[in-house]
Order: sequence, then structure tokens, then C-alpha cells
Amino acid sequence: MEELLAPLRQAVREQGDLVRELREKGAPEQEVSKAAAELKSRKKTLEAKELALQPKEDTVDRVKMEDTLKRRFFYDQAFAIYGGVSGLYDFGPVGCALKNNILQVWRQHFIQEEQILEIDCTMLTPEPVLKTSGHVDKFADYMVKDAKTGECYRADHLLKAHLKKLMCEEKCSAGQANEMEDVITQMDNYAQQELADLFVKYNVKSPATGNDLTPPVSFNLMFQTSIGPGGNMPGYLRPETAQGMFLNFKRLLEFNQGKLPFAAAQIGNSFRNEISPRSGLIRVREFTMAEIEHFVDPNEKVHPKFSNVADLEIMLFSSQAQTSGQSAKMMRLGDAVEQGVINNSVLGYFIGRIYLYLIKVGLSKDKVRFRQHMENEMAHYACDCWDAESKTSYGWIEIVGCADRSCYDLSCHSRATKVPLVAEKMLKEPKTVNVIQFEPNKSAIGMAYKKDAKLALEYLAVCDDCYISDREKLLSETGEFSFETDGKTFKLTKDMVSVKRFQKTLHVEEIIPNVIEPSFGIGRIMYSIYEHSFHIREGDEQRTYFSFPTIVAPYKCSILPLSQNQDFVPFIHQLAEAMTRNGVSYKVDDSSGSIGRRYARSDEIGVAFGITIDFDTVNKTPHTATLRDRDSMRQIRAEITELPDIVQDLANDTLKWADVESKYPVFEGQESSKKE
Amino acid sequence: MEELLAPLRQAVREQGDLVRELREKGAPEQEVSKAAAELKSRKKTLEAKELALQPKEDTVDRVKMEDTLKRRFFYDQAFAIYGGVSGLYDFGPVGCALKNNILQVWRQHFIQEEQILEIDCTMLTPEPVLKTSGHVDKFADYMVKDAKTGECYRADHLLKAHLKKLMCEEKCSAGQANEMEDVITQMDNYAQQELADLFVKYNVKSPATGNDLTPPVSFNLMFQTSIGPGGNMPGYLRPETAQGMFLNFKRLLEFNQGKLPFAAAQIGNSFRNEISPRSGLIRVREFTMAEIEHFVDPNEKVHPKFSNVADLEIMLFSSQAQTSGQSAKMMRLGDAVEQGVINNSVLGYFIGRIYLYLIKVGLSKDKVRFRQHMENEMAHYACDCWDAESKTSYGWIEIVGCADRSCYDLSCHSRATKVPLVAEKMLKEPKTVNVIQFEPNKSAIGMAYKKDAKLALEYLAVCDDCYISDREKLLSETGEFSFETDGKTFKLTKDMVSVKRFQKTLHVEEIIPNVIEPSFGIGRIMYSIYEHSFHIREGDEQRTYFSFPTIVAPYKCSILPLSQNQDFVPFIHQLAEAMTRNGVSYKVDDSSGSIGRRYARSDEIGVAFGITIDFDTVNKTPHTATLRDRDSMRQIRAEITELPDIVQDLANDTLKWADVESKYPVFEGQESSKKE
Repeated sequence: MEELLAPLRQAVREQGDLVRELREKGAPEQEVSKAAAELKSRKKTLEAKELALQPKEDTVDRVKMEDTLKRRFFYDQAFAIYGGVSGLYDFGPVGCALKNNILQVWRQHFIQEEQILEIDCTMLTPEPVLKTSGHVDKFADYMVKDAKTGECYRADHLLKAHLKKLMCEEKCSAGQANEMEDVITQMDNYAQQELADLFVKYNVKSPATGNDLTPPVSFNLMFQTSIGPGGNMPGYLRPETAQGMFLNFKRLLEFNQGKLPFAAAQIGNSFRNEISPRSGLIRVREFTMAEIEHFVDPNEKVHPKFSNVADLEIMLFSSQAQTSGQSAKMMRLGDAVEQGVINNSVLGYFIGRIYLYLIKVGLSKDKVRFRQHMENEMAHYACDCWDAESKTSYGWIEIVGCADRSCYDLSCHSRATKVPLVAEKMLKEPKTVNVIQFEPNKSAIGMAYKKDAKLALEYLAVCDDCYISDREKLLSETGEFSFETDGKTFKLTKDMVSVKRFQKTLHVEEIIPNVIEPSFGIGRIMYSIYEHSFHIREGDEQRTYFSFPTIVAPYKCSILPLSQNQDFVPFIHQLAEAMTRNGVSYKVDDSSGSIGRRYARSDEIGVAFGITIDFDTVNKTPHTATLRDRDSMRQIRAEITELPDIVQDLANDTLKWADVESKYPVFEGQESSKKE
Repeated sequence: MEELLAPLRQAVREQGDLVRELREKGAPEQEVSKAAAELKSRKKTLEAKELALQPKEDTVDRVKMEDTLKRRFFYDQAFAIYGGVSGLYDFGPVGCALKNNILQVWRQHFIQEEQILEIDCTMLTPEPVLKTSGHVDKFADYMVKDAKTGECYRADHLLKAHLKKLMCEEKCSAGQANEMEDVITQMDNYAQQELADLFVKYNVKSPATGNDLTPPVSFNLMFQTSIGPGGNMPGYLRPETAQGMFLNFKRLLEFNQGKLPFAAAQIGNSFRNEISPRSGLIRVREFTMAEIEHFVDPNEKVHPKFSNVADLEIMLFSSQAQTSGQSAKMMRLGDAVEQGVINNSVLGYFIGRIYLYLIKVGLSKDKVRFRQHMENEMAHYACDCWDAESKTSYGWIEIVGCADRSCYDLSCHSRATKVPLVAEKMLKEPKTVNVIQFEPNKSAIGMAYKKDAKLALEYLAVCDDCYISDREKLLSETGEFSFETDGKTFKLTKDMVSVKRFQKTLHVEEIIPNVIEPSFGIGRIMYSIYEHSFHIREGDEQRTYFSFPTIVAPYKCSILPLSQNQDFVPFIHQLAEAMTRNGVSYKVDDSSGSIGRRYARSDEIGVAFGITIDFDTVNKTPHTATLRDRDSMRQIRAEITELPDIVQDLANDTLKWADVESKYPVFEGQESSKKE
């Protein structure tokens, strides 16, 4: 296998070296990004090959699995009786219970364990907030329309599909194919006009009708609405939950009695108006996220509990490995932080905790890896970013992001609102620090901007160090810089503003906290759990089951009377009442199928255990019933009064099935179907 | 007190009799509704007086309470640093924890107890669904705008406020005042033009600027957006969660193996674009609901578990009591169903369960009542409807609705989609039933509607009995009836359609289930809990606390070291870890305030218990600490290893504080502040 991969690895490594070299010698931006795009493409080829060479038994039968998921109403298309809406799904009883359990474990694992401050903000968001965050301007894809039917397509997806088709045509020369391959490689880098030219050059038509297409236009992916009746407050459905935590930073800091570090979290829905959603649950228009914002003093990016996770061995796919054609490799988390592969121990701690969470809720250890963003992938403000990825039939998909976003978000909102979003740190002894400030020439700004000058001055006063240094560079290179505040644009030149540096003695230090942001896509995690836990019973293609871990299993226990005989009813009630008292979810199946058929139905939706009431339950005292383990299909027999507590302990993970087998007689016979 | 109320009761009773009389003699609709509006107004006057006569100590100091709620960030206005948006609130850590706990108890109390099928549907909803449900056409308020500034006002609120002001003016004659009173009374009954005329007649101007107002227009209260990029799929944010359960009826029925009755539930956010939101958390633009739809065979509206709640004594305010000037009265639920005050035992069962839930999460028994809708309040399809109301400083407010909606919703969606939403009932022996069907004259309809005729025929084929009888009446009275389907309007006359009745022998019966719908406003329940549990410590106006029941308390326990001495730190960690293991939420307060000050801070956010670590903890073995009960402020002392389990049992309500006091030594001294 390695033999087949070696040339591909080599190709990646060479291109990685080239990119590094270009960067080092300060090559033009366009040249670098072209080389980087080629690197990305070579990486993709390598990864596709790696996946194709996986042993076959490692891949899930997606058609069979999705059939089960729809047939047993884990989820299904929303508004189906009205024709359905793509990208919108409803979760049925099983999917909803699984989702609730995943979120409950999330709360225990993160919020309770780290004493995180959970908040609950509105989804409706007024425009200025998302203008500041950059979503109004940048959260967009290019789209083309069928000129006659109005059908919309994502420009990049359509162009790529078109080129792939052309490349397969006989008349396509090697030179043309190379050129097209090049376009595909560069796809993410094209500006609107370049993309438009390519659509013309390759004569792309509407795939459904063959009609002409309109030129590509940028389509913002947020759902827009209007708040209030006046029509003068445009708003959006949030594209992420994070903004609410930044906006409430001051209140949260106060709640934490002014102390850093602390973390806030939010669980809730976000929205993304995909142009043409595909791939089922992976890309949807409305989805649940769980996000944490850990606010930390940038000078103290050390996590006191890092040692708790330092010994974990996790599959890491570092930026360096990616650019040199290597595979992801198992690494001790402590070593990764020590060697600087992971930027700091706060990030390292969260990576460890995210890993433990994913395994706890049912992902396979060998199908989870953490991939570091490469330099050209990372938002310009982030210092390090790792995605937890899960291996599915769609390839490796991102399920959790974990980014160190530095002080970017708080600074932006601070500049936009002129509200300082800072923490104060009492210094044990006074400290002399370097201060960097804008020094506005008030009269020059006043001359240029008259009554709006005040806005500019207020703006300059709340800017943070990084921002000032950045603009200083622009000032010296281009002689000016621009900014927008309160809807007005200002262009300041060298004679209007300079940058002043001086020293100051501080007793209290003002800090703009840095933010470490673990961000979970709950739908994608659920989907990964489905794939990783879907099995077919050996020797029976028709019998499938989900081996959900007991703590997330939608139902913990089935209650199955052997038949519809009335003698069983009191025992069903007795068990059901005790389960309810114990807070254990259960499902009674007293339908007429054979007991084997009903076990199969119960397994199919991943119920963890099953209790069967037979005539021995009725006829003999003390009354007993069988308890069956879904995964091993083994059974024991115990007194009916004990069973609910056994199931409760199994559900809470304080008892293992092996312990149950060692304590109670294993049941290997047939349920007694004879009434005495 | 009764003496003061007697004339008001008399006035209500007289008007109630009048309304009944008018109805009985078949008076014109307008006359009846005018009389009913007057009845409503008299009822309001009576209720206002009743409330005003309440003992003073019974009312909460709302200003003080809201100050605490905002200061300790239970909730606050959303987007405050951007100027805020009215009607949108963010829940901080305390409010969010309380909300999560309320929902968790809801799941236990309803979903787990009744084996309800919880589902999770999208908030984004395409227009046709809400067209069918009536929301596109009818979910609206009248609004007027300041002609210059564009400021919007709810027409009825503004007109009422204006008239009240006029009535207070000296120059207002008794006759004029009577007339205005009459307008206020009739406010809900005016059509758009009548309302416009009144604005002119009373010369209403913009209250903020004195500018002219535009005439009233109907403003739909749903937030509109567009799904997908084409701009051709208008959608809304759902105004309620119920529709998702109706649309998934077939899947849910199948999941329940085709059997009735069963119930579905959904917890999630809904949206309502209020014209000018007021009254804090009571009327907001985005809110969490929890709704149940209990689907039941209309011929078997009997709940098998009704006897479990039959003995509850609940304050009921029947329609009859309301129209005869009586007060709400305590009634045994069993008697209410037996006497027909409550329509059936399914509705009765839910009323009982709702009551138990409200008390469990912290509402005061004497501040909860169930009020029956009067005939003219009830949606025309509902057979009976009761609102749980809570007494607050805003008066009695609706917090839970509990309606028997008959087969209305399923029938509507069935007609709109032509998908039969029915259950099948196997009959033990064949049964002869009366069938009622439309008998279309195909050629006449074909002549009139050409190629659309097919749509009309499909529509007629899925109509249910009630709908057909209704239309039959119209046919015989007016000679025609109209309907809309697939965006086309049809008017059918007597020669195009008739109604056929015949008998049929059935082996399987098709049933359109009736729906009992308990619908919970979670924000309003939370607000009621705040008011009902807010207290001021006797003798200290500054010390306030919330006496939340332990199961919903945002934090179960505080951990308070006596001072910031490092010797306490290991004990804090030991307790914190044990609490986390036990799944008990806690909050460490190691700030520098005195222990008394910190108890006060802990009480202020309703933490149920507090553990204090003092020097006796450190100095003596076995290590002990004190445990304090928030409500009684009494303390005991116990071993530090035992405390987490005690708190866990208290939190789960398996142990009462009285039991703790009887088992452990009461601690009445002062915490030991001397290090040995």
C-alpha cells in the first residue's frame, strides 16, 4: 500500500517545499496562492488514494443504513407532505432522543466539568452585529442561475462538474485537460470576474435544461428578515452561536467577578442558506451547534488541568505533515504541546477533552483525527486551528473546530460599538509597559470630516495594539488607511494620524482576552455516530443494529412480553413504572410479531437492552425475566424487582454487562411460552 | 371585600344573561358580539377590582426583583452594546440553568411519564404550510405609522391610550366618555375601515411627535424570509411548534405501530414579530415553547390514567362562572369532568398533569388557576379550551393553553396536500356506518374548470365528515361554496356537487384523530417562578432571595471557603470533584467578601444550599464543613466526604432538609476563623 502512495507523497512534499520557498523569498501573493492551491489539490489526491486503499470491511453500507434511518424515523426530510424542502430535516423520536442525550453528555462533559457559563441568546440578530463580524460582507458563495427557469447553482460546483465532463471527452487534448485541471485546482481562488470569464470560455450551460446561465453573483448565505414592523431594522438568523457570547462578554466577566480565565458556552440552532444543499445531514440549512468561548489572558495561555489529558494518544495531522506528504500520526498530546505542534496547552487541553467526548458518545477511535489548518487555510487572525475530523463514507469530514482566535472578535465589536471589551488585572506591583496609541491630528481630521470627525476620534481611541500596529504598517507603506464606523467611511492620511509609542507605569492592567473556540456541529457528530455504530449481524444481511454507547442510546431498554397474552400486562406495568421512577427511557413493544422479530426491531433503533416477560415470569415465584444485551445478544435471568435497577446502573455506566453476567445466571434457553 | 365586589358581579351576571338570551333567540351576529365584548369588559373590571383588593403583602416588589434579575444576569436585553433590540432577551448563566432545569423536569414529567414521542422539527417553514394553518392570513395585528418618522404603533393599543387620555380631560362630557368607553369595549371587534374611521374621528396623532398617522394596516406577525437562493420559496420562522407534529403525523403513527392514542411533543423556539413589545419577558419576539399533541380516537376520549389526578383540588374558572360574575373556585378534578365542566377526561387528565408540573417547578398553589375559554373566545374548531393562568404583578397571565382542537389541523393539512392523515382501526366485528361524501358532477366541474377540474375532484375526495356537513349547509343556504387548493380558487354550485349519504359495512375504520394540545410558554412560566419565589429577608430590605425548588434551582450548592487562605483550596477541589461526579451543579465563591456577604450573593441567585469550609475543616479530623439551607438559613455540620451525597439526595428530592437536620448536628455557632 505504501508503495502505491509513495509517488503521491513525493508530489505533495515537492509542492509543499515550493510553497515554503516562495513564501520565504517573498514571492508575489498570486504566485504563492497558486502554488498553495496546487498543494491542496495534491493533498486531496493523496487522501483519496489513501481512502480507496482502506480495507473494504471498514466502509459502511450507506444505502442500507440510510434506509434504516428513514424507515425507523431517526430523521426524514421536513415538509415531505408539502413536497419537501432540501436541506431541512426533522428528527423523529429516535433521532431526537439521541440528540438530547448527546447534548446532555456535552453539558456534563464540558459545562459541568469546567464550570462553564452557559448562556442562551437569540437567533434573530440585527445587521450591524454581523456587519462587524464580517458575515454580511464575506459569508457568501458565488451562484449562477438558469436564465429561463431561474434554477440556481453553486458556481464552483457547476464549473467543476462541467470541466470533469469535458476532460473525459475524446476530443479533449492533453494540453486542454491540463489547463482544466489547473482551473479546478485554483477554483477557490477566483474572483467574480475571473469566474465569469471561465463560464464563458468553457461555454457552461444549465445542466438541467441546457439554457444559458446568468453570470456568477455573490450570494450571502444568511437568511435575512426584518425585525419589527418598520422595515428599517434588517436582521438575520445567526450563522453561528459565537457572537452572542462576545456581545455578552462584559456581563459574563462581571458574573465571574472580574476574573480571567473563564469560558462561556451556548447550545442552539444556526442557519445557513445553502445554494444547493447535498449530502444529507452533512450540509443542511438549519442545524444545532454547541460552542465554547474560553477567554484567557494572552500572557497566560497555560491550562492548569492539561496534565489530565497529556498522556492521551491522539491521531494528529499537523500542518507540517500535510505539506510534506506524510499521513496523520498517533502522538501523545503532551509531546505535541511540548514540541510546539500544538500552539499552547489551553488549545491542547481542549483538543484532549474534545477527543474524549467524541469517543464517549460513540465515535470509533480509529476514525477520529485532528487536522491542523495550514497557513493559507487559517483566518488571518487565528494563531492556530485544529479540526476534529471523522472518517465517514463521505471521506474525512470536519465535525468540531478548535481555534485560537486571539483577540479578534472582542476587538472588532469593541471598535464598532466603542464599548471597551477588556478585563482588568490587578498587578501585584506596578509595572512599566510599552503603550501604543493612535495620535490623531484633531484639526486635520476636523477639517476633512467636519461634524463626523468626532466619530473617527472615538473610533481611534478604542483600537487595540495589534490593530494599531497593522494600520501603522499600512500608513508607512501606502500613506493612508481606511475604516468604517457607524456606517461612515473614513480615509486617514499620514498628516491626520500618527502612532505614538511610550512607556507607562501601571497598577491595573487592561487586557483584551484571547479566545479559544471549540465549536461543535451536533448534526455531523450524530451522523458520524450513525456510521461508526452501524452493523450487520453476521450471517443475516437483513438484521442491522446500531451499537450506540449506553449513555447516548435513544432508549435504554425494551420491554417485550412474549405475546399479547393479558397475563403479561401487570408485569409490563410494574417494569414501566419502575423504569420511569429510575429515569430510564424504555419502549414497550407488545405488537404481535415473534420475539425474535421484535428483538430485531429493537436492535435496529439501537435500544441498549431488552427485558422479555415469558410464562416463567408469570408462573414462578419469585417472578423473573430475561435481560438481553444488544451487542452480544447474550441474556441473563433476574428477579423482576431487580431488573430496573440493573438497567439504571448499566445506563449510567456504573455497571458493565460483564459484571451483570458474572452475577446473574446466563440464560441460554428459549423463553417459556407455556401457560401453566 | 365581597360587599365591594357584589355590584360588579351583578353587572357581569346581567350581561352574561343577556348574551345567552341573544344567542338563544338567534339575534344578529353583530348584536351578539357587541354584547359579548361588553361582557368581557365588565369581567375585566371585576377582575381588576378583585386584584386591587388583594392583601398588600401578596404582591411582589417588581422593581427590586427586576433589578436583581438584571444585575445578576438572569437575563438582559439582547444586543445591548449595539443599542439593544426590544422584545429580544439573552439568558445569562443563572437564567439559562433555570430554563434547562425547567425543561428537564418537563421531559421527565410529560415525555418520560407518558411515553410521548418527542420530535425536533425545523423552525424555517415554507409558506404553503402556514397558509393552510391560517397563519399567513390571520396571524396579524393592525398597525399605524407616524407619517414622518415611520415609527410604528399597534393601532388598538394606541387608540385605547388616546381615548383614556381624552376621557380624563375636563371638557369631556359624560356622554362622550360613555361613547369612548364603548369604543374601548369593542376594540377587538373592529374591522380595518372602522378602526381607520375611529382614528380620524378622535384625531389620533403620533404620541412621540404629534405627527399625522397613516391609516391602520394589517401587519402579519411572522418573520418572513426566503429559503434557498432563487427567491421563489417564501418562508417564515414558525409561530408555534405544533405544525411540525401535524405534518409528521403519518410517520409518528407508523412509529407507534399504527395504534391510537399516542402523543407527540416538541420543545423549541418560536417567533412573533410584535409591533411594539412591552412587559419584559411576557411578550417577546423569540421564545421557547413546549407543546404536546395527543392524538386520540374521537369516540374514545377517555384517559385510562385519569383516576391518578381525579382527586386533585384545582382552582377552576369555568366559562359559566365567568359569565355569571362568580370567582374561580376550588374544585375536585374528578367532579369537574363528571359534571361536564371539563369536556372529557383526556382534557381533564392533562389539566391535572399541567397543574402538578407547575407546582413542581415552583409556582404557588394559590397563584395558579385554570380558566375556560368562553364561547366567543374559542377558535371555532375547538370543543373546549382551558388556559393555566398565573397571578403576577401584571395580573393573571396565560402560561399554558390546553385545548381540544378536534380534528381541525389534520383535516386542513390533509385537504391541502391530498395526503390522508388518518389512522386505521381494525374492527373486531364488521360494522355498518353512515358515510358522507361529496358527489361531484364531473362533467359540470370539467366544463367550468377545464384542466383544473382534476384538482377540484382530488380535493373533494379527501374532505372529512365535519367539513362536508359544513359545506352542505352552505350549499343549501347560499347555493354554493368556495375553496382554494394548489393556489387555485374554485366556486362550486349546487349543480356541480351534491352530498351523498349512505351506509357501508366496514372491517377497518378510518379515523381522523382528535388532538388535545397542551402548549407551554416556557418564558412566561419562568417569569412566574421568579415572581412567586422572590422574597425579602425579614428585617433586611437589602437581602433578597429566590426560593426555587431544589430540582430547578440553577445551582444546587455553593462552595464557600471562609477566606482566601490557601489551606482551604484542597477542600474546595475535593468537594468540587465529588459534586461533578455526582452530577450536581455548584458554584465556588472564593472572592474576598465576608461569609455573610457571600451567603447573601448566593441566596440572591437562588442557590439551594451552601457548604462553608472554615478552619475547623482544616484543623480537625475527620474533616467537617457546614451545610446551610437557603430558605431557613439553618445549618448543620457533617463530614466533608458525606456532604456531596447529602446534596445530591437533596437535589434529587429523595431527601428533605428536615431529615438532614434530624441526622446531623445543627450548627449554630460561628465558622471557625482561627488557624491552629
